[in-house]
Amino acid sequence: MHRFLDLADFSREEITGLIDLANRLERHPEPHALAGRILGLVFFNPSLRTLASFQAGMARLGGTSFVITPGQGTWQLETRLGAVMNGAAAEHVREGLPVLASYCDALGIRAFAEGRDLARDLAETQFGAMAGVIDKPLINLESAMNHPCQSLADWKTLDDLEVPRHGKFVLSWVQHPRALPLAVPAATVHMAAMRGMEVVVLRPEGYSLPPATMDKARAAAAAAGGSVRETADRDDALAGAQVLYAKEWGSTAHYGDAEGDASLRTSLGGWCVTPEWFDRAAAGCKFMHCLPVRRNVAVTDAVLDGPRSIVQREAYNRMTAQMAVLHRMLSHGV
Amino acid sequence: MHRFLDLADFSREEITGLIDLANRLERHPEPHALAGRILGLVFFNPSLRTLASFQAGMARLGGTSFVITPGQGTWQLETRLGAVMNGAAAEHVREGLPVLASYCDALGIRAFAEGRDLARDLAETQFGAMAGVIDKPLINLESAMNHPCQSLADWKTLDDLEVPRHGKFVLSWVQHPRALPLAVPAATVHMAAMRGMEVVVLRPEGYSLPPATMDKARAAAAAAGGSVRETADRDDALAGAQVLYAKEWGSTAHYGDAEGDASLRTSLGGWCVTPEWFDRAAAGCKFMHCLPVRRNVAVTDAVLDGPRSIVQREAYNRMTAQMAVLHRMLSHGV
Amino acid sequence: MHRFLDLADFSREEITGLIDLANRLERHPEPHALAGRILGLVFFNPSLRTLASFQAGMARLGGTSFVITPGQGTWQLETRLGAVMNGAAAEHVREGLPVLASYCDALGIRAFAEGRDLARDLAETQFGAMAGVIDKPLINLESAMNHPCQSLADWKTLDDLEVPRHGKFVLSWVQHPRALPLAVPAATVHMAAMRGMEVVVLRPEGYSLPPATMDKARAAAAAAGGSVRETADRDDALAGAQVLYAKEWGSTAHYGDAEGDASLRTSLGGWCVTPEWFDRAAAGCKFMHCLPVRRNVAVTDAVLDGPRSIVQREAYNRMTAQMAVLHRMLSHGV
Repeated sequence: MHRFLDLADFSREEITGLIDLANRLERHPEPHALAGRILGLVFFNPSLRTLASFQAGMARLGGTSFVITPGQGTWQLETRLGAVMNGAAAEHVREGLPVLASYCDALGIRAFAEGRDLARDLAETQFGAMAGVIDKPLINLESAMNHPCQSLADWKTLDDLEVPRHGKFVLSWVQHPRALPLAVPAATVHMAAMRGMEVVVLRPEGYSLPPATMDKARAAAAAAGGSVRETADRDDALAGAQVLYAKEWGSTAHYGDAEGDASLRTSLGGWCVTPEWFDRAAAGCKFMHCLPVRRNVAVTDAVLDGPRSIVQREAYNRMTAQMAVLHRMLSHGV
Repeated sequence: MHRFLDLADFSREEITGLIDLANRLERHPEPHALAGRILGLVFFNPSLRTLASFQAGMARLGGTSFVITPGQGTWQLETRLGAVMNGAAAEHVREGLPVLASYCDALGIRAFAEGRDLARDLAETQFGAMAGVIDKPLINLESAMNHPCQSLADWKTLDDLEVPRHGKFVLSWVQHPRALPLAVPAATVHMAAMRGMEVVVLRPEGYSLPPATMDKARAAAAAAGGSVRETADRDDALAGAQVLYAKEWGSTAHYGDAEGDASLRTSLGGWCVTPEWFDRAAAGCKFMHCLPVRRNVAVTDAVLDGPRSIVQREAYNRMTAQMAVLHRMLSHGV
Repeated sequence: MHRFLDLADFSREEITGLIDLANRLERHPEPHALAGRILGLVFFNPSLRTLASFQAGMARLGGTSFVITPGQGTWQLETRLGAVMNGAAAEHVREGLPVLASYCDALGIRAFAEGRDLARDLAETQFGAMAGVIDKPLINLESAMNHPCQSLADWKTLDDLEVPRHGKFVLSWVQHPRALPLAVPAATVHMAAMRGMEVVVLRPEGYSLPPATMDKARAAAAAAGGSVRETADRDDALAGAQVLYAKEWGSTAHYGDAEGDASLRTSLGGWCVTPEWFDRAAAGCKFMHCLPVRRNVAVTDAVLDGPRSIVQREAYNRMTAQMAVLHRMLSHGV
């Protein structure tokens, strides 16, 4: 495997094969599999799980990693092509990233959406420009519209807990103090569709996912025997649900417009998951969230601390799933 | 050993056993003892010695470590129970810390005192709330009222230099531009008492250590054949002293009141250790400080650069003492 | 080798011996040569290449490293002797650096020029004060007037590309939004002279390199059969050049005077390297730069992205050259 940028780049069998490998490495650790291998991690945005789980995962496989945080200990990096660089950024990604790649065996990059122009973010313009100058194995640590490591971890978590392949999976918008990127909701709806689930996106008006995102998920669902639809009706969405996956994101109707988003958001205080949300769900309905999550804004303590919550398992599986990716990417041809 | 949070959790024999182990590892390195083991280090506050000595110590035992710094490369973490998280903190320690713990074999946490409510800090409310959600081995890298790694290193330093077990140990308040936490003075007075020393706390009016802190130290002294008292009389305190341990801390009479503390502090410029402080001390009286120290504010260059100063040995012993803790905690049952 | 602070501390044969070792390690990796060895890296200033290449280089030789960034996760460090430390810095380098050195087998320090007093910077006052308190092997990661790791990497790059030993090497000043330190130009002119090249420093009026810097380079040239001169005439400088090495630096006529430097700089927009600069150069003339570089300010995209540019090779050789230094410094007497 040379690149791990999007679950859609792989067949369903390749993804389940990665999860099988993750399960095997959990049962039979390989503490020397990546001996001598070096992973470079570049964070344009903050991280807790991604940083720690990749460093720990490499270490558990016998490899090492280094971390670069542009703007903090390292200069800011410019991403615009053709820029006249007389501003704050001292170095362009066209120099900086190939240099870092030349020091390591694989590179991971986190670069959130710019959040100004939806078409530009949907096209992964920024991440694509970076990926285009790197000739080493590359891992997407979250880009404008994708988070494949999170999705692989979530898929494995659904399998670990034996959630039925064609079960009902509700991705619900939840409240947040401000607009957040679309990466996780876009990746999640596609992941659940690709797994073959009955996917319902529950969101208030103004927060529809982009048509291109929904189309991509529907194509995955069609191939896997699942379905994808959107609704603003909570009762309808949650009836019989086996999974409630909560996520915050910004209004697509006001993309890049913080004030417009904020004006919509003021009336949406009810979009904080409480135990009552599960009244019509299936008996064992699970609560998922990729973390970080704002307690009592997006979800109440009662749900997060209750037995439905599997957020810790999801987070733990970041490490196990990523170890499979690293193993597939770096253990051959040593 | 599952937790290393407070020297008071261990018997005197357990502590001297740790120091014996530290000495053994100095003489007979074990470069593979912790192979495959991962230590997670979480710093809510700045660090130089703790960060470097734990990373180097793990490496010397064949293990690895990763570092998380909330608010810097990682989001700020909320610690209050029941908080409605609509402020700056994006994640609660109730999620973040168990996640990090799930990636590693032991976790170290540094979280200084909140410095507002003495009773709350004395109860270790904040650190306790974090410790309560972690089921992995845990090390206190400095909490509101404790710094067991520093104390173990200091005890070993006293042994290394053959300071008599029942010798006179003076912990003296020294000047600083502002109020600092009570963690090191509280840990130090207890450590010296537990070692069996004649402990004198020398401090100006308004800077008494809390009664609970003194009581805890006195109980340790009683068990070890030592004593603990407080005074504001420098001549009395330092007469015959074998150790002068300088430390800055905030006024307990004005806890959480920066202005009140500052008004007391203005007249205390004389509390900067000079060579003359040692005039009545024992001939070989040592100068100790946990570092960092502000030269010519807390202590003059002449003392720090002179032969009495053993601050470098203390700092070096952070690594050797912590290696014993890590070895005891992580080398069994591999 | 105990210290790697300045190429001038070594004979020409010792430097070519290091490059031979770097070449050997490229062909025949030694993944266990530095097993158990620990490198401490202290960055008073930002870094991308230095941080990543040292961490990766140590890992490729089986060693480990830790990173300390004063002012970021670690307190600010004071460097002035005799300072009364009642300001922002919580710790003096006289304590902090020996402590860090005691945890590791070698220390690397980056501390840019203070940029106020040229004589003080030329004397390496600040770096010298730090080096003077460290008794472990020490590497200069860029000081006020030197960057020996960059120079060793550049020398190796010239050899890799078979640039003739006595070829014409032009170090040219280029534009930047503000005054930058003299470390790289000073190190580069000395390196090229020591290699035996015909060195021309091309710079506008007001940007002469300091006489002491030129004298040092001329002495190296005399020993190696090369030459060193300065000019402001671009045509003269570049005629027949085999290498154009671009670098930004501050006006020595206005050292420490940002406004004076800025007023000179406004009329120097033409000092941005374009393809036309190579019109009179030798056919295969290479473009070098130590990076980071501001595109379309110091050099145009056309040059950086064109076939003359060997900046990526230079950056890659930071790692290979430094691995030779680390191997020579730390692999003996294990």
